[in-house]
Amino acid sequence: MKKFDIYEDPHRRFNPLINEWVLVSPHRAKRPWQGQKETVADDSRPEYDPECYLCPGNVRANGEINPQYTSSFVFENDFAALKQEEIEFEESQDATFFKAKPERGISRVVCFSPKHNITLPEMDLPTIADIIRTWQKEYTDLGNVDYINYVQIFENKGSVMGCSNPHPHGQIWAQSSLPTQIEKTQNSLKAYFDKNGSNLLLDYLEKELEAKERIVIENEHFVALVPFWAIWPFETLIVSKRHVTKITDFTPGEVITYALILKQLTAKYDNLFETSFPYSSGIHQAPTDGLEHPEWLFHMHFYPPLLRSASVKKFMVGYEMMGESQRDITAEKSAQMLRDLSDIHYKTR
Amino acid sequence: MKKFDIYEDPHRRFNPLINEWVLVSPHRAKRPWQGQKETVADDSRPEYDPECYLCPGNVRANGEINPQYTSSFVFENDFAALKQEEIEFEESQDATFFKAKPERGISRVVCFSPKHNITLPEMDLPTIADIIRTWQKEYTDLGNVDYINYVQIFENKGSVMGCSNPHPHGQIWAQSSLPTQIEKTQNSLKAYFDKNGSNLLLDYLEKELEAKERIVIENEHFVALVPFWAIWPFETLIVSKRHVTKITDFTPGEVITYALILKQLTAKYDNLFETSFPYSSGIHQAPTDGLEHPEWLFHMHFYPPLLRSASVKKFMVGYEMMGESQRDITAEKSAQMLRDLSDIHYKTR
Ligand SMILES: O=P(O)(O)O[C@H]1O[C@H](CO)[C@@H](O)[C@H](O)[C@H]1O
Ligand SMILES: O=P(O)(O)O[C@H]1O[C@H](CO)[C@@H](O)[C@H](O)[C@H]1O
Repeated sequence: MKKFDIYEDPHRRFNPLINEWVLVSPHRAKRPWQGQKETVADDSRPEYDPECYLCPGNVRANGEINPQYTSSFVFENDFAALKQEEIEFEESQDATFFKAKPERGISRVVCFSPKHNITLPEMDLPTIADIIRTWQKEYTDLGNVDYINYVQIFENKGSVMGCSNPHPHGQIWAQSSLPTQIEKTQNSLKAYFDKNGSNLLLDYLEKELEAKERIVIENEHFVALVPFWAIWPFETLIVSKRHVTKITDFTPGEVITYALILKQLTAKYDNLFETSFPYSSGIHQAPTDGLEHPEWLFHMHFYPPLLRSASVKKFMVGYEMMGESQRDITAEKSAQMLRDLSDIHYKTR
Repeated sequence: MKKFDIYEDPHRRFNPLINEWVLVSPHRAKRPWQGQKETVADDSRPEYDPECYLCPGNVRANGEINPQYTSSFVFENDFAALKQEEIEFEESQDATFFKAKPERGISRVVCFSPKHNITLPEMDLPTIADIIRTWQKEYTDLGNVDYINYVQIFENKGSVMGCSNPHPHGQIWAQSSLPTQIEKTQNSLKAYFDKNGSNLLLDYLEKELEAKERIVIENEHFVALVPFWAIWPFETLIVSKRHVTKITDFTPGEVITYALILKQLTAKYDNLFETSFPYSSGIHQAPTDGLEHPEWLFHMHFYPPLLRSASVKKFMVGYEMMGESQRDITAEKSAQMLRDLSDIHYKTR
């Protein structure tokens, strides 16, 4: 009988953060593609676009005028999915099948730069560090609101990721409940911490630094790697090497090395297919429920959809929705491809 | 304080099948859309396309020639994600973080019709009934393979759902493990059955038939409804009214009423935006592990991505990937829209 070869044979891998499996089909990467091609976004944009509702000085949907901001700029989302209003609520009797609860929260938009035509990897380090300090301030301010227990910082980049405006920006949705993915992650981190008295992600990171094959970038304080259980073809995880549970714990020095790894990782992404690489990214960190959370480790997920070129993405559809996530290239191969790429953006070389 | 109004206020709903919440933001449906528009597929196709690798008599990627089939036609997927080969395997020591297992399986393609230019709602009842009988045969044959414990039948329809060929077809991936979503569903169904001595989905269906507001279609043996916890804007669930755990238990009469509800539901979908409506659908039913599964009830999920028109879809991205699924229109409103539409396809009226 043939011996199991993880680089070649179909297999499943287990994600201990959310207790889910992913199906890996290494041999399937060679499949020809006759399906939908994404339109490659035209990146020739002006530095200022009079039609853009995020550019400085322009009018937004609700009639407000953006200030002449010069670094990052935060405002309340004009079409927020969450509202701040407190709602009176009694649990219904049919709560097994018709379980619903009002949810309170605040949604904000974070413009990364006044310049309409720039993305993270093209920004200089001080600009990226300024974005990180803005995230720190927002985590503090929103986390201090009495009913807010989780602050979700994220970015949708590229029209293929549902981003409706190419002006560089991210969002923050802060809310009273722990969102599903956070609750799952917290349960796993907590169970591990209670059992082993140590931090799941720090212990994992140690093993990854020994194994080396999934590491993409390492600096003094941070590591970017393709997790063993990655779902998206070029999914990565940025982890703090020090036991830091939330973004506000970073020293000024760590803010700079975090900015550096963000710049280098996103530059590698753009270099992969010489295109502005679409992704959704998000920070996972300790809830703001007032409790200590030693089980948490600050980390940031990048979920990019592209698979084989600037126009061919991986579709998480039928089998993936009904059965489980599936990937066609191993995490090790993806990590190697990203590792071998220059971290200098192709447009600035 | 304002009283909770489920049709207006932001809230979360709980899905007891997989124990996950969804964030519902009814007020957000009015948000303007400046982002990516999907290209509307051109449906003027010939009945036979010499370039199509699924049409009768044509050559496939592996050199095989399709027979001159006249009803449905099944073959092994030429680029299968799973392989049948048995693999020798020893669990590694690092199994906490690097847990992987070989996975065996069989992937098949099911052509629904020899006609290249037809979709489910445009087919006549005998043709749809023939597809259902093919699914029954495949469930039996694949389920009888000793190492196969689950048979996932699904369809990706439309290029926006990663479908690489418009010829009407679905797929079957049959494998040794229970896929993640099936394992979650089974755990919930089992826990409910053990606690209440009854079937979760049958009990749920009873409540939905009383409430009426989420029902889309009801016939003698089946109901199509928008589940209370639906994620996708026009997500639906087809449920059997009788306690049937698997597709092979349906009587010839039930095969016809199942064909009918499939035809009517997909016709309503096409009528919604007068376009060939994209979706991923999939059947969830009892595993083929040789055990009795009284906790199961045969059901079929439809996950369609369109939100507001033939070209504007819902993106499950940043917040949804990092936090939890989110929707902008209530399940009740979607159900009403689908219910009010004709079940006669707009092209045949
Ligand atoms: O097998 P197909 O139709 O080529 O591929 C499609 O369906 C598969 C099963 O859901 C997915 O894994 C692929 O990403 C998708 O493009
Ligand atoms: O808020 P935006 O950028 O208009 O919207 C985008 O991000 C949101 C948060 O991930 C999603 O709910 C939307 O589906 C997506 O289009």
